[in-house]
Amino acid sequence: MASETIRRVALIGGGVIGAGWAARFLLNGLDVVMFDLDPEAERKVATVLDSARVAWAALYPGLLPAEGRLSFAGSIAEAVKGAGFVQESLPEREDLKRRVLAELDALLPPEVVIGSSTSGLLPTSLQSDMAHPERLVVGHPFNPVYLLPLVEICGGARTSDAAKAAAAELYERIGMQVLHVRKEIDGFIADRLLEAVWREGLWLINDGIATTAELDDAIRFGAGLRWSFMGTFLTYRLAGGEAGMRHFLDQFGPALKLPWTKLEAPELTDSLADRIAVQSDEQADGVSIRDLERLRDKALVSVLQGLRATDVGAGATLERHMQQLRRALPEPVSAPVDEAAPLRLHRAAVLPEWIDYNGHMTEHRYLQVFGDATDALLGYIGAGADYVAGGHSFYTVETHIRHLQEVKLGVPLTVETQVIGGDAKRLHVFHSLFAAANGDPLATAEQMLLHVDNAASRAVPAQGDVLARLDRLRLAQAGLAPPEGAGRSIGARSSAPASESSRG
Amino acid sequence: MASETIRRVALIGGGVIGAGWAARFLLNGLDVVMFDLDPEAERKVATVLDSARVAWAALYPGLLPAEGRLSFAGSIAEAVKGAGFVQESLPEREDLKRRVLAELDALLPPEVVIGSSTSGLLPTSLQSDMAHPERLVVGHPFNPVYLLPLVEICGGARTSDAAKAAAAELYERIGMQVLHVRKEIDGFIADRLLEAVWREGLWLINDGIATTAELDDAIRFGAGLRWSFMGTFLTYRLAGGEAGMRHFLDQFGPALKLPWTKLEAPELTDSLADRIAVQSDEQADGVSIRDLERLRDKALVSVLQGLRATDVGAGATLERHMQQLRRALPEPVSAPVDEAAPLRLHRAAVLPEWIDYNGHMTEHRYLQVFGDATDALLGYIGAGADYVAGGHSFYTVETHIRHLQEVKLGVPLTVETQVIGGDAKRLHVFHSLFAAANGDPLATAEQMLLHVDNAASRAVPAQGDVLARLDRLRLAQAGLAPPEGAGRSIGARSSAPASESSRG
Repeated sequence: MASETIRRVALIGGGVIGAGWAARFLLNGLDVVMFDLDPEAERKVATVLDSARVAWAALYPGLLPAEGRLSFAGSIAEAVKGAGFVQESLPEREDLKRRVLAELDALLPPEVVIGSSTSGLLPTSLQSDMAHPERLVVGHPFNPVYLLPLVEICGGARTSDAAKAAAAELYERIGMQVLHVRKEIDGFIADRLLEAVWREGLWLINDGIATTAELDDAIRFGAGLRWSFMGTFLTYRLAGGEAGMRHFLDQFGPALKLPWTKLEAPELTDSLADRIAVQSDEQADGVSIRDLERLRDKALVSVLQGLRATDVGAGATLERHMQQLRRALPEPVSAPVDEAAPLRLHRAAVLPEWIDYNGHMTEHRYLQVFGDATDALLGYIGAGADYVAGGHSFYTVETHIRHLQEVKLGVPLTVETQVIGGDAKRLHVFHSLFAAANGDPLATAEQMLLHVDNAASRAVPAQGDVLARLDRLRLAQAGLAPPEGAGRSIGARSSAPASESSRG
Repeated sequence: MASETIRRVALIGGGVIGAGWAARFLLNGLDVVMFDLDPEAERKVATVLDSARVAWAALYPGLLPAEGRLSFAGSIAEAVKGAGFVQESLPEREDLKRRVLAELDALLPPEVVIGSSTSGLLPTSLQSDMAHPERLVVGHPFNPVYLLPLVEICGGARTSDAAKAAAAELYERIGMQVLHVRKEIDGFIADRLLEAVWREGLWLINDGIATTAELDDAIRFGAGLRWSFMGTFLTYRLAGGEAGMRHFLDQFGPALKLPWTKLEAPELTDSLADRIAVQSDEQADGVSIRDLERLRDKALVSVLQGLRATDVGAGATLERHMQQLRRALPEPVSAPVDEAAPLRLHRAAVLPEWIDYNGHMTEHRYLQVFGDATDALLGYIGAGADYVAGGHSFYTVETHIRHLQEVKLGVPLTVETQVIGGDAKRLHVFHSLFAAANGDPLATAEQMLLHVDNAASRAVPAQGDVLARLDRLRLAQAGLAPPEGAGRSIGARSSAPASESSRG
């Protein structure tokens, strides 16, 4: 059955894996009929589906089709009625799987492909009681099924190529990454590697060397970060430096004899080393070590930044280090500040992800820099994080940005800030953005902030010391000339602005 | 020597690992003196340092101290003069390391700690020729040293606790995550797990089951994504579903007997299973399976989004799937647009990374949404990417934003856009942001755009069809009432704005 005509799938087994399949199919707009003997299955599947909806709303904003319909069947026969594809996700017992697969086989028209989620049982055995064994395909996913794209496809001795192709097409349609396991083997490919890690870990616990937490830390703060986008072999190609995989094998080959794991290595013969070097060259596909390193670094930076936002693992380490570095920075205002001049409280560099396809800084990054400058000002008058934790904040109510000159990658930016008005409840500021080396502003932002009692959600006068510092600053700057451009509304003619935030 | 007083470190060996150490120390403001016999070392270190600078500029914007000074010494004796710490990163040969460590030991005052980067040689052996063996600590990093935080600290039989503590303090000062290896063992902890994967992979190549590329895909599209923040044991706790680790062990314990890797597992006795379950409980530290799942999903979403930005591995899979879904969406403007009403051309969802620490949408994300709405308008009048490629663009010159109501996570946003003025060279628009379900605007943005000849960098009339479509639209909307708030300058009193973009 061609993938694009499939509108409904039957899922046999609604555990962690089955529920994950349900979520992935439903969110891609396919209907799902599920069969599971567990009376709790419906509740458990609903929980997984809820999590998947949250994740997919973030991953695919505005792109999701209408969700498919989920129903629960009282029998296998009822579940598979009208299904264009069946996925079996029962417990990992060969006798059970074989029995149910034979039952499915007897119920379904022969063109319907059946996928099995088995982690490592051989499809040749699983298909042995089927009248149409050609339609049985292993489609082995990873938890959580709705977020990890990998699915291993493995056929048995009697599986048809057509069935494998149909399963691959359907899995790709729901956003998965197919890995064809060309030779049937216990554990396929991924679980052989995972199982080796698992068993080595069990030994280390058994022998009292490490705890579960230490074993996990050994991965997630190190190799695990690389493994999220680059496997062991490409990683080791890079570890060889400019001399590449051959050099790495020469250097670390002898370590294969060392007792670094309970797993004996194969003999690293010349022929095996050659095969690895050739495969590694094919895998790198002409991309130089230098370019692979750039890709690796870029991906690692992205992953670390993502994990920092989630405050987990290496992201938490990064955050801690950032705080350390922040504390170690020389006080930004070490000399007494001349409050009778515009304040220079914020600096930034134009980062690569701030640049649009025209090579200019994207419009909303201007506001990011100006917003950070406002935060620096608030910190300066004592209205920083502690003040907010105490229940009061300044909220921006209005912003007026003017783009005056082009801003390009890498430019060191400085913001000059002038307080141009306000009262006990209102703070009226004017920022000018400069390239460190240049005298004319690149852009300006005028902002009005309101001082708010967070709990009451209404404007109130600023508190004690903050108000005093603000008043002092306002007074000191009262004698400054109003900045060019302040108080303007849009459409008021200016002297030919050389406008510069590109669009298109 | 107390970590904070260390200003200079000596690095012995400038290969991939030594160069990575150099970058990490230098970027943290410490001076580095390096010794390496390779005449190319200076060039190689410079290359690694360049990469590290790029990565750290992105990771630590505005936070980096002045970079330390790098110099190369002609001898080991010269290199270690005045060094507060020494890190040895020579090739993985025990005889070589022992000889150099003994030489370092003879040269250095006894309070200077020496770290060895060895991947798995035993510190008890490495320190055997030293007069001050107590100062020798294994500090085993991972490549690239300047990005992966993990460092394993392992002492030998004669290493002092003080030396281990001093090394840990210094490594943490440069942003690393220390894992103390409590029992000396070949390969420590991380490399035992990595070596098991490596050797199992070598067997799979040796036996013709998989290629290097297939082995890498088996990790990076699946378990590798989880491993970037959560190791095997916590992952498997979740795989057990609500019943947790004990259930997982009951379910997958029997698979330890299956030939899923060439590595024999230890006997999963009751006592071992108990130990694992207890350790796993301690590791989870009272956090429920449900909350761990939420954390896992949030981190996976961040990692996938990060990798999508880099267009690598699972990020490329995600991008492909997004394009598929986009093609499958019903045409957004299927009915003829009523140009005599404000246009609804852009929708968005509030993503987790758009939220500040007060739980509100960050200020510059408003401009991102409005900027995307302007892009949608330009696409609608035919001034999209093709038009820009043809040499003309609209540039934003001014923006006026008003914040009217709070915007929270997950809210589905719609923008209504009205053309309120302009001419052949100028486009004057007014956006109103709505929650899909709510009648009052959350925020508004008034923008003035200029039509520019990109090469000449000056304002010119819009071209042919674009000008015609723009004129038609302007004419159709000329009868609409001017939106409330248009033409305002900052400071003009409004009827009590309930201001909502929080700061602090």
